[in-house]
Amino acid sequence: MVLVARDTARLEELADRLRTRHNVRVEVLTADLADAAQRATVAERVADTAQPVDVLVNNAGFGTGGAFWDLPEEVLREQLDVNVAAVLELTRAAVRGMRERGRGDVINVASVAGFFTVSGSTYAATKAYVIAFSEGLATSLAGTGVRVMALCPGFTQTEFHQRAGLEMSKLPRAFWLQADQVVHESLADLRAGKAVSIPGAQYKALVAVGRLIPKKLQRMVVTRTVPGRT
Amino acid sequence: MVLVARDTARLEELADRLRTRHNVRVEVLTADLADAAQRATVAERVADTAQPVDVLVNNAGFGTGGAFWDLPEEVLREQLDVNVAAVLELTRAAVRGMRERGRGDVINVASVAGFFTVSGSTYAATKAYVIAFSEGLATSLAGTGVRVMALCPGFTQTEFHQRAGLEMSKLPRAFWLQADQVVHESLADLRAGKAVSIPGAQYKALVAVGRLIPKKLQRMVVTRTVPGRT
Repeated sequence: MVLVARDTARLEELADRLRTRHNVRVEVLTADLADAAQRATVAERVADTAQPVDVLVNNAGFGTGGAFWDLPEEVLREQLDVNVAAVLELTRAAVRGMRERGRGDVINVASVAGFFTVSGSTYAATKAYVIAFSEGLATSLAGTGVRVMALCPGFTQTEFHQRAGLEMSKLPRAFWLQADQVVHESLADLRAGKAVSIPGAQYKALVAVGRLIPKKLQRMVVTRTVPGRT
Repeated sequence: MVLVARDTARLEELADRLRTRHNVRVEVLTADLADAAQRATVAERVADTAQPVDVLVNNAGFGTGGAFWDLPEEVLREQLDVNVAAVLELTRAAVRGMRERGRGDVINVASVAGFFTVSGSTYAATKAYVIAFSEGLATSLAGTGVRVMALCPGFTQTEFHQRAGLEMSKLPRAFWLQADQVVHESLADLRAGKAVSIPGAQYKALVAVGRLIPKKLQRMVVTRTVPGRT
């Protein structure tokens, strides 16, 4: 297992826990995926055929609080680099070798936000990219033994929302997912050959309804109900 | 009118034609939108409140032929920069002043491809970003006098497909749009306050049907009918 993050101390702590609990070999790689050179280093490791990566999980990504026009350009740039460029480059690095070996899985963590119009949200736009990219790639890899899936969770109990500066206290309890549930359902979807995984019956229903109602109504509903976004 | 492109000779020729035919003041700005510094120069001009831009049209963008995993990384990077980063940065540069003035229009040229799963296509993914970004921003700007619209044309007779290396001879004639039609319908949609414009009845129908049929069927149909894509 290779863990990649920009915070070394945190990474080492997690690696130790995994080694102790699951008795696996864990490699840590400190890298900031907002940095092109550091992304290239990670891509090199992912592409290394001497130590092949069988499952790539592109999980890094962040949202932003506040209005689009008030965000510093660097933050928008960083978001595009982490949420999109890293997914694109690391997937490319992994898929080449996976095709040769005739097996391998890529899980790109997107979000249900990618299916909706979220007022002023570049986050939702980056996730719409990840969904379209993963589905398109899954289609072109059909029959090769290589699977690509976009994982689209709803609100999940992690530190994500705090970092994005979102006020979440008004979200109905039924919409909270547990990380465990997201992991289990998404792996089942991967085994079933799905190109898109939407964990949780409540979110499956939401996305299905969202596709059927007029976009204008959808925008109105999302704008009034999604917490914290201006 | 400010024209931006990376080919100076072509830009000057177009500027001359516009000056002669329409008697307008035309400013030309040579810039490669794949280059961060050159994008910043264009953003500066767009943000200049002494010579305000009333209508911003983000039209630059390109597709690629061939399989995703065989594309050079620089091409993918360039596509993300031109199709996404430029739209993001120039829209931001324009919208700040437009909000202060209480008026202004941003037309981001996307594609109907952004609504479909196109096998192995990073192009379709960039356009999914542009649609989600524009819709989200249009929602947050409602009532400010500033309008943002994603223009989603289908196959239009320009040099686009040649550049992308697409073989188009098998496309049924009914699916070809003329550039004039795209311009007229999209401007009418902008005036009508739409956040998304899909010129041509045939494409409006296609997108509507695409939303209703299961994704899996949609992928199959698109894979078998869209020309030239591997």
